[in-house]
Amino acid sequence: MISAKIKNKIANGSAIRKMFEEGNRLKAIYGVDNVFDFSIGNPDLEPPKEVKDAIKELVNSDKEGLHGYMSNSGFESTRSAIAKKRQEESGVEITSDAVCMTVGAASAMNDVLHTILDPDDEVICLAPFFMEYINYVDNHNGKCVIVPTNDSFMPDFDAITKAITPKTKAVIINSPNNPSGAIYDESILIKLNEVISSADHVIHVISDEPYIDLVYDGKSVPPVLKYIDNLIICFSWSKSLSLPGERIGYTLVSPKHPDYTDLVAGIILSNRILGSVNAPAIWQYVVEKSLYAKVDVANYEYRRNLLYDNIVDAGFDCNKPSGALYIFMKTPQGLEDEVFAAICAKCNLLLVPGKSFCRSGYCRLAFCVSESTIVNSRKAFFAVADEIGLSHKTSL
Amino acid sequence: MISAKIKNKIANGSAIRKMFEEGNRLKAIYGVDNVFDFSIGNPDLEPPKEVKDAIKELVNSDKEGLHGYMSNSGFESTRSAIAKKRQEESGVEITSDAVCMTVGAASAMNDVLHTILDPDDEVICLAPFFMEYINYVDNHNGKCVIVPTNDSFMPDFDAITKAITPKTKAVIINSPNNPSGAIYDESILIKLNEVISSADHVIHVISDEPYIDLVYDGKSVPPVLKYIDNLIICFSWSKSLSLPGERIGYTLVSPKHPDYTDLVAGIILSNRILGSVNAPAIWQYVVEKSLYAKVDVANYEYRRNLLYDNIVDAGFDCNKPSGALYIFMKTPQGLEDEVFAAICAKCNLLLVPGKSFCRSGYCRLAFCVSESTIVNSRKAFFAVADEIGLSHKTSL
Repeated sequence: MISAKIKNKIANGSAIRKMFEEGNRLKAIYGVDNVFDFSIGNPDLEPPKEVKDAIKELVNSDKEGLHGYMSNSGFESTRSAIAKKRQEESGVEITSDAVCMTVGAASAMNDVLHTILDPDDEVICLAPFFMEYINYVDNHNGKCVIVPTNDSFMPDFDAITKAITPKTKAVIINSPNNPSGAIYDESILIKLNEVISSADHVIHVISDEPYIDLVYDGKSVPPVLKYIDNLIICFSWSKSLSLPGERIGYTLVSPKHPDYTDLVAGIILSNRILGSVNAPAIWQYVVEKSLYAKVDVANYEYRRNLLYDNIVDAGFDCNKPSGALYIFMKTPQGLEDEVFAAICAKCNLLLVPGKSFCRSGYCRLAFCVSESTIVNSRKAFFAVADEIGLSHKTSL
Repeated sequence: MISAKIKNKIANGSAIRKMFEEGNRLKAIYGVDNVFDFSIGNPDLEPPKEVKDAIKELVNSDKEGLHGYMSNSGFESTRSAIAKKRQEESGVEITSDAVCMTVGAASAMNDVLHTILDPDDEVICLAPFFMEYINYVDNHNGKCVIVPTNDSFMPDFDAITKAITPKTKAVIINSPNNPSGAIYDESILIKLNEVISSADHVIHVISDEPYIDLVYDGKSVPPVLKYIDNLIICFSWSKSLSLPGERIGYTLVSPKHPDYTDLVAGIILSNRILGSVNAPAIWQYVVEKSLYAKVDVANYEYRRNLLYDNIVDAGFDCNKPSGALYIFMKTPQGLEDEVFAAICAKCNLLLVPGKSFCRSGYCRLAFCVSESTIVNSRKAFFAVADEIGLSHKTSL
């Protein structure tokens, strides 16, 4: 007597669960230090000092009403501060009513999709993408339409144009991208806006931005607010401030969006009725006080370099990602992703086949794991290369 | 280009918004101290000392990984402690896997309904009830079937039996009840279990329990786990520990439930994909350390008495509630609820017509407002009584 859909999802979820269990099995046999688990994107850095100081100050202040209800959209002061920061970054005038505080980006996405989707509406997802989008769209009776990106993981605009139907309600973008690390530059955003604007009905662009502060090699992410008109941002501090267990983020509707008023009201309503009611009070205060702080990005860049060198030195083909927390390595020629992942697992190396992101020919490795795991995994990459007869680029 | 359903809900929501705006208008004219707003159930007591001590200790400890991801169901230690407490209270053996930590009771209800409902499934709601249930059920494509309770706000078992169809998936109970304050005793729970069990398919009983710790006059709430088999509990600490802005609660599936395994897996999955991912980490730690603490219930009882005396002394008819945070007074004979509410508003007294809880003939007043508001409102109740020609029971 549970829903048929959920029963089906529980059954299908068992593939990921099996990998998790396989990791635990290997760790039990070989010891935690001898299993190199790159499968999960769990940020392991501590939050920056600003966050720790802010929460201590708050909690030790014994401020009255600190944990009480507020408006469903969140504290006015927090929303104003976010609007001000986004305005500084983009040059677009933003007011606090554009912002609704949410229980992380996942709730933000659900709030937005609940607000916009009628039954059987279509949402375009650019592959590879974070597969949870499929659940989020399905929760609200929509359907994902999967459009592959090109070999550089950039949008294929002809393919997007062809995929648009009268039922298309939104396109989801995610730059820096999970799993590829790709960042959309200004020209891509301008072209995307042209394509979306030339449709004969309003199509929302949902920008999922959990990795926007995690960029490397001195690169930067252009402000989407400047380039995309029909924009709804979904942001989370899970990665930027390393607060993934605390669930704090926001939605922001572009003032240039033709449905601005309806969207703002609908998202606040959805935030209430889908069960969040409001984002956790204490974290709203903390992020307001830590708005310009960041996790130690240089540390992530250092780990990315270590992992990248391991992969390439062992002889594999791989793109160096400019952002996010993952390397999306090419699966060696002639091998299925799952077969390659199984060979890796035999060498105690855990990664996720590209199928889990709707893009075959690749596997994802998260570099937000301990430095020692990355350093010690080097021999495992070389062992896998030996196993499949690949020549190393350098010595072990 | 937003969903038709949400567009409709925004339009219908404006009645409540109007009342809120009317309150603000009155406060601007007469001053905050001269408007007696009993319309909103916003717990205004501070959390107990145990909560404040627990969060200070946690935050000041600089514990590593305090804000990281955990399993979607929450911390094992928190879930174990809750299972142990519920087992002590009910005598039913409960293990930690029965429990899933959630973003308050509203998320808990959404997680449960998302797990159980197929399109057009029916959920029985016993009127009067918290109207947000209609949104929660509708979010997951279900339909509410409204069954009135009797004059003492107890379930009408004949009416429930008649309302059950092959589509009936669940009954929602809420004891102590918002808005009536009614508490179901053992005999009611036993009878409800009989009625539900005699249906020819499994019907879930969803027990929404935000007020379970707020009972007065030395009364207690019987443990539902002992009496109801097909039980799924939705709990929140919003009222028990006065943490409404922080969003922390849980679901608990009875081990006697025939769908136990599917429900446990489905609720964890729904908790993840509906956007919570997990309940806020820091609040899971805090509630675990404060599990046997309570807000100052005696203070709420004192305020209930003050408000009750005002209402009855002025000449109105009213039941004294044994639990929760509301008095559900009878609308004086010959008046529509909305007309009476409008007369009250003219005397700067704000309350909610029974229609907002699917029960005409009553109006709801929240007594979780400041003591001074209650004390100063006495003259307003007498003024309303004068306005409609009611004799006072005592002098002002």
